[in-house]
Amino acid sequence: MNIRTIALPAVLILTAVLIPLCALAAPAPDVSDATADCLGCHEMTSPGIVADWRAGAHAATTPQKALEKEGNALMVSSDSVPDELKGVAVGCAECHTTAPDDHADTFDHNGYQVHMVVTPEDCAVCHAKERTQYKDNIMSHAYANLDENPLYQSFALAVNGRPTVKDDKLALSAASQATDAQSCYYCHGTKLEVTGTAARDTFMGEMDFPVIKGWPNNGVGRVNPDGSLGSCAACHTRHAFKISEARKPYTCKQCHDGPDVPAYKVYSTSKHGNIYSARNANWDFNAVPWTLGADFKAPTCAACHMSLLVSPDGQTIAERSHAVMDRLPWRILGLVYAHPQPKSPDTTKIRNADGQPLPTTLAGQPAAEFLIDKKTMDERKERMQATCRGCHATSWVDGHWSRFMDTIEATNESVAASTALMTRLWEQGRADPANIFDEYLEKVWTDTWFFYASHVRFTSAMAGGGDYGVFADGRYFFKQATTELAKEAGVETTSGQ
Amino acid sequence: MNIRTIALPAVLILTAVLIPLCALAAPAPDVSDATADCLGCHEMTSPGIVADWRAGAHAATTPQKALEKEGNALMVSSDSVPDELKGVAVGCAECHTTAPDDHADTFDHNGYQVHMVVTPEDCAVCHAKERTQYKDNIMSHAYANLDENPLYQSFALAVNGRPTVKDDKLALSAASQATDAQSCYYCHGTKLEVTGTAARDTFMGEMDFPVIKGWPNNGVGRVNPDGSLGSCAACHTRHAFKISEARKPYTCKQCHDGPDVPAYKVYSTSKHGNIYSARNANWDFNAVPWTLGADFKAPTCAACHMSLLVSPDGQTIAERSHAVMDRLPWRILGLVYAHPQPKSPDTTKIRNADGQPLPTTLAGQPAAEFLIDKKTMDERKERMQATCRGCHATSWVDGHWSRFMDTIEATNESVAASTALMTRLWEQGRADPANIFDEYLEKVWTDTWFFYASHVRFTSAMAGGGDYGVFADGRYFFKQATTELAKEAGVETTSGQ
Amino acid sequence: MNIRTIALPAVLILTAVLIPLCALAAPAPDVSDATADCLGCHEMTSPGIVADWRAGAHAATTPQKALEKEGNALMVSSDSVPDELKGVAVGCAECHTTAPDDHADTFDHNGYQVHMVVTPEDCAVCHAKERTQYKDNIMSHAYANLDENPLYQSFALAVNGRPTVKDDKLALSAASQATDAQSCYYCHGTKLEVTGTAARDTFMGEMDFPVIKGWPNNGVGRVNPDGSLGSCAACHTRHAFKISEARKPYTCKQCHDGPDVPAYKVYSTSKHGNIYSARNANWDFNAVPWTLGADFKAPTCAACHMSLLVSPDGQTIAERSHAVMDRLPWRILGLVYAHPQPKSPDTTKIRNADGQPLPTTLAGQPAAEFLIDKKTMDERKERMQATCRGCHATSWVDGHWSRFMDTIEATNESVAASTALMTRLWEQGRADPANIFDEYLEKVWTDTWFFYASHVRFTSAMAGGGDYGVFADGRYFFKQATTELAKEAGVETTSGQ
Repeated sequence: MNIRTIALPAVLILTAVLIPLCALAAPAPDVSDATADCLGCHEMTSPGIVADWRAGAHAATTPQKALEKEGNALMVSSDSVPDELKGVAVGCAECHTTAPDDHADTFDHNGYQVHMVVTPEDCAVCHAKERTQYKDNIMSHAYANLDENPLYQSFALAVNGRPTVKDDKLALSAASQATDAQSCYYCHGTKLEVTGTAARDTFMGEMDFPVIKGWPNNGVGRVNPDGSLGSCAACHTRHAFKISEARKPYTCKQCHDGPDVPAYKVYSTSKHGNIYSARNANWDFNAVPWTLGADFKAPTCAACHMSLLVSPDGQTIAERSHAVMDRLPWRILGLVYAHPQPKSPDTTKIRNADGQPLPTTLAGQPAAEFLIDKKTMDERKERMQATCRGCHATSWVDGHWSRFMDTIEATNESVAASTALMTRLWEQGRADPANIFDEYLEKVWTDTWFFYASHVRFTSAMAGGGDYGVFADGRYFFKQATTELAKEAGVETTSGQ
Repeated sequence: MNIRTIALPAVLILTAVLIPLCALAAPAPDVSDATADCLGCHEMTSPGIVADWRAGAHAATTPQKALEKEGNALMVSSDSVPDELKGVAVGCAECHTTAPDDHADTFDHNGYQVHMVVTPEDCAVCHAKERTQYKDNIMSHAYANLDENPLYQSFALAVNGRPTVKDDKLALSAASQATDAQSCYYCHGTKLEVTGTAARDTFMGEMDFPVIKGWPNNGVGRVNPDGSLGSCAACHTRHAFKISEARKPYTCKQCHDGPDVPAYKVYSTSKHGNIYSARNANWDFNAVPWTLGADFKAPTCAACHMSLLVSPDGQTIAERSHAVMDRLPWRILGLVYAHPQPKSPDTTKIRNADGQPLPTTLAGQPAAEFLIDKKTMDERKERMQATCRGCHATSWVDGHWSRFMDTIEATNESVAASTALMTRLWEQGRADPANIFDEYLEKVWTDTWFFYASHVRFTSAMAGGGDYGVFADGRYFFKQATTELAKEAGVETTSGQ
Repeated sequence: MNIRTIALPAVLILTAVLIPLCALAAPAPDVSDATADCLGCHEMTSPGIVADWRAGAHAATTPQKALEKEGNALMVSSDSVPDELKGVAVGCAECHTTAPDDHADTFDHNGYQVHMVVTPEDCAVCHAKERTQYKDNIMSHAYANLDENPLYQSFALAVNGRPTVKDDKLALSAASQATDAQSCYYCHGTKLEVTGTAARDTFMGEMDFPVIKGWPNNGVGRVNPDGSLGSCAACHTRHAFKISEARKPYTCKQCHDGPDVPAYKVYSTSKHGNIYSARNANWDFNAVPWTLGADFKAPTCAACHMSLLVSPDGQTIAERSHAVMDRLPWRILGLVYAHPQPKSPDTTKIRNADGQPLPTTLAGQPAAEFLIDKKTMDERKERMQATCRGCHATSWVDGHWSRFMDTIEATNESVAASTALMTRLWEQGRADPANIFDEYLEKVWTDTWFFYASHVRFTSAMAGGGDYGVFADGRYFFKQATTELAKEAGVETTSGQ
């Protein structure tokens, strides 16, 4: 046996094996002088933040290199990036010192004009298209859509209000800002306001830092010190900003796991979630574009709702969108009835036929002028179904969708029944509609549409069926709450074919 | 240093490292001409389906090669496989064109006689033994066991029925087929019926496809267009059919996560589930047979209930079975009292002493002639305990089992109490037993046995203890619902030693 | 091209690649003769146990080698280890035959004096410091802290008691030991008592084994046959005892997932849990010490509460502690009001101003003499916040903490309101305070503090916000239960600014 004849192919194979390993170890690009200054201290004082940043793409590449990608592989969507940023890693200073005059939380920090809160405008330096899409996204308006809706104020009082028992009354008064920041606004986003400056001892001596009311928060509709709306970090967690993380369902779970929006629970119990859980360790969550069938075998939240998807032969199946309603004709959560998505991401202007700030009346009539029309709904349905057809035959997709339509009709019908019972209780004086959310029976009614109809619709939308559609906060509990209202209203329940 | 003397062992080691890598890249076998024709279009029109199939064993081997495996490693259980199938991969045509005359959904598709719904009979060409076992499995009868049970019809009406409020009545009328297909029958299986043909535009021009009522569905007891019962794809997801997926608990979670059958929740919170979650990334879920201790360190659902298990020295610990009740003496879910498993998988014939289609009376008396006897129960217990003893000493197993027996007695006793209270409410006219499920108080009673007793029993059966046995829909809520019935019936609750 | 010049670097690189692989395959150390005897049979009769032990560190190293580690890498905390144990693997005999006279369950087994239940005293041979810390840990007293508290006895009766309906009464009598062992004591630990000996057929012929009441159990406060308290296996699962498993959140989930202590649910829905779930496959859970930023990017339960953490430059961020309250100033679960942690892990002595065995009165006044003072609380807060600051700026940590303080105040205030309503119901004769837990309305009151206040506090403590703070058993349900009590007490609910 001649060692040379064996060794050569072996070395070639070895090289093929080792090159990918070496590629992982490619040297990180230079950081700017400013970022080097940041790292000088923060490597020691904030080791976790620095280590996480080093683990991400921003530390491993430069805008210049990112701009060299082509077509569907391009991640930087701005037409150009300022020259001074192009050749260095996207480090501390690149994000925390952009446009200092625009940020009310900018402060002098060792000679740098640093702002604490990085906003979508900062990210837009490189990711302009995503920032524009997100602006049009209902999520970016999540703060005012609550805060400026009088019915929400009643609801918040009924949920978060401070209770006191006095003189035969249970009185609910306004909750603290801390309470609101930890409940609704945790996901919707707080309003950040710079209220002053505080001195703090550091290992560099006493230093001044801005005091920001509403901080910390990474809600999707956060009102920022530069006036922009939203936080990219809601889904793209600081400081690694890994696309792999945003594509996994745990990110969405943070705000879509509760009984009001049970998306994650339904997903994780669905066939899609089953396949994901069993097999995702072998999938590629970093590939851009994301190739259906090759990089992943079953969708995550991002795949159906946001991601740029291509087929193995490179055809685009779905365009990337940071306006999450682009593939959504119907709004099936959070409000009394399922209804077409609102036209504008700013929902504060909506008034129903009874003058209430709701997209339907309590009897179910849509406030049509504020909602998208059939043509827009059909376009969105087509975009969504295109992703379904990547893995399902048309007859499967059509059968699924017709059930979903049936569910929207059936759940709205069921909510009409529970609302009719609640109306009777109001008429009977069993509850006071001054605040339609704050008494026990009103909460049982709220359960019917806010929790149970939502579960039924999500299982239907996501083909989750089974448990969450029936017994796990689904139709069974929907009917239980409805019959409790009937019992209280003295309405007899009967059943028959 | 002489490079040759170093290089030779290095190359040998290298070879040892690379051979397994190469093995993974072994060339896929030929596909049949028919399958090649399918792939010609569907590679493009259904890229996800094709990619998933390519990722599975059916694309990577042939029946011929599979038949060469011996003993416990054999996966094909049919004595022989038709010659024309032996030498090619198990592709599209091999499953979707089998026995075309038997499938009512067979249609002409580009010259091929294709059926949409692949059934257990199709799988039985290679997997005859599993198909036979599954036929005897209560799961395969899951459709008729509901549909032909009059009490189930009352229950379905009470859960899924369409509610309307009129003339001081809350009336429940029959739900749509779409609603039923998305609730009970999502897991139990729908009845598939070919109702006609529809033309659809495709990129090949207009084509006809069968229209199938009840489609899509992959429930365990699906009634198929060829008259067979069940869907192998309920657990062996199309189109990769990975045994690794069926062995992981997420597959079972799809139908066993809700409050009626909280198996997954209890498992994931148990010590078994803890070990699985923490360590399964390093286990081998593809090995056949499955070696306890070597391939996995803690059981999944499949390990205890279905899988062929061997010890590291090759001894068989448990035989593979697709009749899931083979290791189950007791039925602890879904019915008013825990009771011995039914003798026949067809439970439609069961009548209790009061003539009701239930395996016990409402007072708890078993319909013994329809249920397995003590000898059969003991055999099944022994089969289950043999798997326990793979990792636990006998004293541990015995202690565990005696608690489980205590739980069956204690939960039945507790259900007897809540049923006694419900009976009193019926006698008092507080609810109408015409339909024993449709009114609020009846639902509170249903909660006691259908949800809470079930949680207590599952935690006991699976050594999950703790949360789901007490506070997470366990004994606490069981007692809360029972005392609500007592309060409504004017029955005083007292406690004492 | 000269093969030699290519081959040499290739071989060197190859060596670098293969050395870690070889390291994994380092030969296991010798086992003692006694352990070899155990393995002789148990390799066959308990293959899962043996395989799991072989997968752990105890089989892969010796105390001697472990003692050679230095500084923060040292895992053996005893100053010395008996000579006869030093040179062999920590096998069956090393743990199951230690100090046989101290163990009431020691029995003669093939000539060896074996005890079935391995206790903290056995582990303390090598891990003395952890054993001492754990002794001072409230968890080790978890059995008596329930069993010797009269109010707990009332609670247990109300939850676990056997119900019978007779003479217009729903009477609850004491539950079986099996029931208690599967509910509260599953996590808290049972009391193990050797009650006799039983003969059993084995493949070696008939053998005698001790019968132990309360067995099996691995609760944190188990009362052992040697009089010690606790089970190290509660978190360090037998028989691999992997530190990686104890550091993952699934271990804690076993007892901290229910509505009473919803830690895991809140964690898995938090940003920390999101990062963990998405990225942990690439983290190192075996490294000792555990380097923040390098070994892991987001904390698990262990990281914040117990683990020795160092920064990438080797600075200690937190000391290892097996007294889990060392970083906890507040007790936010399990009792009517949040309050400072108790001074002593033995809480049976605590009496409030009304003489009840509770750390506060039902009106909320703390039993201050039994609770830690402000200085101790501040020390513990500082220890916890030091871990936060590993990844978060001080302004972030301070903002988070001030919200947590607000939550403690707000939830206590809300519990005071629900308690005031319950008090009114007791005064109205609507419930009988003889047992304050056993009637329906009392359970609705219990829900308010035991479940809903707990969810709100855990989301606040763990920055989980969102779902579990509002709709998932949070503020919404807190208010729903409170208004149900108001409705029942004839107290009107009103809301306004």
